[in-house]
Amino acid sequence: MVLAKPGLELVGAFGERAHRAGMDLGEVIGLDRAIGIPINADLDKVIEETRPEIAIQATCSRATDAAGEISILVQHGINVISIADEMVYPQHKFPALADSLHWEAVSHGVSILGTGANPGFVLDLLVITLTGVCADIHTITARRVNDLSPYGPSVLTSQGVGLTPDAFNSGLQNGTIIGHVGFVESMHMIARAVGWEIERIEESREPIVSQVRRATSSVTVEPGQVAGCHHKAIAYVGGIPVITLDHPQQVEPQLEGIQTGDSIEILGSPHLNLAGNPEIPGGQATMALAVNTIPRVLSAAPGLHTMVDLPVSAAMLADARSFLPEGIKKESG
Amino acid sequence: MVLAKPGLELVGAFGERAHRAGMDLGEVIGLDRAIGIPINADLDKVIEETRPEIAIQATCSRATDAAGEISILVQHGINVISIADEMVYPQHKFPALADSLHWEAVSHGVSILGTGANPGFVLDLLVITLTGVCADIHTITARRVNDLSPYGPSVLTSQGVGLTPDAFNSGLQNGTIIGHVGFVESMHMIARAVGWEIERIEESREPIVSQVRRATSSVTVEPGQVAGCHHKAIAYVGGIPVITLDHPQQVEPQLEGIQTGDSIEILGSPHLNLAGNPEIPGGQATMALAVNTIPRVLSAAPGLHTMVDLPVSAAMLADARSFLPEGIKKESG
Repeated sequence: MVLAKPGLELVGAFGERAHRAGMDLGEVIGLDRAIGIPINADLDKVIEETRPEIAIQATCSRATDAAGEISILVQHGINVISIADEMVYPQHKFPALADSLHWEAVSHGVSILGTGANPGFVLDLLVITLTGVCADIHTITARRVNDLSPYGPSVLTSQGVGLTPDAFNSGLQNGTIIGHVGFVESMHMIARAVGWEIERIEESREPIVSQVRRATSSVTVEPGQVAGCHHKAIAYVGGIPVITLDHPQQVEPQLEGIQTGDSIEILGSPHLNLAGNPEIPGGQATMALAVNTIPRVLSAAPGLHTMVDLPVSAAMLADARSFLPEGIKKESG
Repeated sequence: MVLAKPGLELVGAFGERAHRAGMDLGEVIGLDRAIGIPINADLDKVIEETRPEIAIQATCSRATDAAGEISILVQHGINVISIADEMVYPQHKFPALADSLHWEAVSHGVSILGTGANPGFVLDLLVITLTGVCADIHTITARRVNDLSPYGPSVLTSQGVGLTPDAFNSGLQNGTIIGHVGFVESMHMIARAVGWEIERIEESREPIVSQVRRATSSVTVEPGQVAGCHHKAIAYVGGIPVITLDHPQQVEPQLEGIQTGDSIEILGSPHLNLAGNPEIPGGQATMALAVNTIPRVLSAAPGLHTMVDLPVSAAMLADARSFLPEGIKKESG
């Protein structure tokens, strides 16, 4: 997407996987041609050789894994957009890390933003945007039923796809089965936006046991095996369950007649509901958000931001430079 | 809603209708009690006596009608939220007026924002928010099928409710039938957000002729009379119709089995659709947006803003002062 957008120039690529070291980025991302950008495993070197204005950090899900790379970028005066799930709202689970990144960004005059389809959009920003038309709210319920088929082995493994139900339950115990990363972030983002103080969050993870054979390019699930993880979370305020986020993720759901989609229901003044089928595709949406937020991040005050702190990102259908305020355009040439 | 929200204090009321002069606001808005705030027809006097931090301007639909009141407020150093439809995006139809209000706000250190359910949210901000997950977009189609029954005579008259089809067509000719005010604003707001340059907008207004008797507290429509106005607009970019906004408005649509609702469809990468039934109620949503945007407007840089320039508004479910950044809270006591 960066290669295709007028006004953006892709200048460098960092990646640590040994088997990709030195490979041309064009080949790695499935283009038919080399683009003259080798994948470099030395982040400092990539930065020094390419001097980007902004970096898209897309190497992990956890804030603690992302913070090191983000910090190096920030120290070099580079703005950062991270798609690490926990970076969408690190302020709750990692307040010290969030604080440290914030002041590091301030002192280097750059901005950091975490974004993604979910967390970052469907079960938080979109929900918060809808709450704006409410005078009062009793409960928020949002559901994302998605298809994991486009994803590769690392995502499928973390959801237990292809395991027996017993192995799934063992995986839950030993922490190899994770389900969705992002409920805590989405819920605290919503709560902060509307002024709720969450007392506790209850989460449940159930295996989705397939009745039929389901096959993707990465995995085959036989009947009786696990096709995915039904992960659900409920947030309590004043002893009452006020936010419910429900997110069953599986490969090939249509083989059992399951319709994928996103839905949001708010009970309040007024009641609201909004739904779409199929679901907003996670991979494509995360890519688009990461690129479409570039002008917002370059225009933001220095610091660590969330999707709710900045004006909403829109599709960039003209030269990317035209979305920057005049002063910033000049500065960045 | 202002009276009900902790942290907000309603200090004064301006209104020009002669029959309400001096009446207590509590009675006028249908409370069972007086609240000690008389309706005053002298804006300068209300301002001097009450010294508000922010005013909600809710007296008209047209930017040219709203600008005078907004300007007086701004000159007294008061932030303004306007629900005048055209103030949602006055930059296209009234660039000189928008420019003048912007610099007036800047020079007095306050902010102006136009908001409302539509324009201001359903057919523009919500659409723009959704485009953020798209790498490319071919067309945007959004539809709002709503029920005009809750509205009073001035709205119903402008939609031709209760007329014969002939009188409706005459009303279109002589300008008394207006249909929806806001398509041009919503379309240019969307276009600016995504970087499209609109060449022209085609609008059509058709009478919705009722097959049955439809009655509200303000009007009775007999079979063969007009129940509302089907107003539609298409925006062209590069000779291609890229944005279609469709907005049939009528009283008691359910009497002919019409399901009200809002829907947005984007054809692009990826395709998106989102829909809700019934429609987001216009009156309630406009009220909530006007109040929920207060902290955003008080936190904004001085000037004239649109809903797309500021972070999204969320429901205020805690003390209104807690939504303000620390510095602003102190300043405003």
